[in-house]
Amino acid sequence: MIVGMVIFPGLTQLDLTGPYEVFGRMPDTQVLLIAENLGAVKSDYGLLFIPDATFETALQVDILFVPGGRGVFDAMQNKNLLHFLKKQSVNAKYITSVCTGALVLAAAGLLNGYKATTHWLSLNLLRLFDVEVLEQRVVVDRNRITGGGVTAGIDFGLTVAAELFGEDVAKEIQLFMEYDPAPPFNSGSPKTADKITVDRVIDDRKEIQKEREEMIKRLFT
Amino acid sequence: MIVGMVIFPGLTQLDLTGPYEVFGRMPDTQVLLIAENLGAVKSDYGLLFIPDATFETALQVDILFVPGGRGVFDAMQNKNLLHFLKKQSVNAKYITSVCTGALVLAAAGLLNGYKATTHWLSLNLLRLFDVEVLEQRVVVDRNRITGGGVTAGIDFGLTVAAELFGEDVAKEIQLFMEYDPAPPFNSGSPKTADKITVDRVIDDRKEIQKEREEMIKRLFT
Repeated sequence: MIVGMVIFPGLTQLDLTGPYEVFGRMPDTQVLLIAENLGAVKSDYGLLFIPDATFETALQVDILFVPGGRGVFDAMQNKNLLHFLKKQSVNAKYITSVCTGALVLAAAGLLNGYKATTHWLSLNLLRLFDVEVLEQRVVVDRNRITGGGVTAGIDFGLTVAAELFGEDVAKEIQLFMEYDPAPPFNSGSPKTADKITVDRVIDDRKEIQKEREEMIKRLFT
Repeated sequence: MIVGMVIFPGLTQLDLTGPYEVFGRMPDTQVLLIAENLGAVKSDYGLLFIPDATFETALQVDILFVPGGRGVFDAMQNKNLLHFLKKQSVNAKYITSVCTGALVLAAAGLLNGYKATTHWLSLNLLRLFDVEVLEQRVVVDRNRITGGGVTAGIDFGLTVAAELFGEDVAKEIQLFMEYDPAPPFNSGSPKTADKITVDRVIDDRKEIQKEREEMIKRLFT
């Protein structure tokens, strides 16, 4: 089983590393980072990743995965990246994303007619595509599996592990990872966070979200 | 504010990348990966990290952090690494770990007389040191902050963010990270997982845990 995780400048590293931790622990599974070229790829807060293969050299993967992050704005307009996703999607067993990686899959036309989810701040952007957008932590629709924002990647990863190897394997991985979360605050969703916190986060990203919206309307609708 | 995250071969990448995601989002904070030398460091399932500084060149950090993983067996016996931790600990504001990183801090003598926690599989090993071991997700004792296994690093990171910058900042980061966990199974702790799953995990690590125990008894007790 080969998992191909696409990386690009400005990805959110935990979108990638959450599921990576699960995928790495799956039996008989090889996890590859795939990028446009073999240079180090910088994530949005500086952590570097070293690709294992490029869009040109990568073999066919079984699980195709795309993370999100500020870099999706460019990734959605990167013809080589979109071409790679389309090409791999023909024979990939699962086509997946976490966070705003769903926008990249949508830009490649790979979520047309599917149910999917994304980071809560970008649900309205995913709705601009021909996608049935659900406000869920993880959405499984046929062979498309998409997760919500950032930390949803862990729930997503365990869901994928259960799909592929059964619940017993997923439960074992969950126990190894001691995934028994105890968030110190009840602030992980706009539904539960204080209004002032929600407003501050929305305000902080207002500019970026607006740019994304205009770009999507211009190029994809 | 400088966060210095120590990395070594065989670390568990999510021990590092969970808190990194929180630290990276803290205001006026620089996050550095610090290793024995500047070569890429391979984590236990293959993901590579590029150090920003070495034990010799790193400036004084404010938050000293150590992840866990299979590599702690060697890290606990690495004199350069232990020397670096001891040297930095004198002026660091916080001395912290996630998962079995606590064993490395303990090997450096930095948890003597403190309350701390670690991965559930290694609680008994941490008890071999002069440490008051608590079975908690995150333990704060004066300027020592330790987290449980792997995914506990996210709860840990948010706890550190709240200590340093207040609850409002931590809540905002939690909302950005959409940390509203929904584990697909109730299998994240030996207290809730099926007995058969717990037995399988314990059995899988029996050898490693025994080697660690013998090494700790030989070198540290």
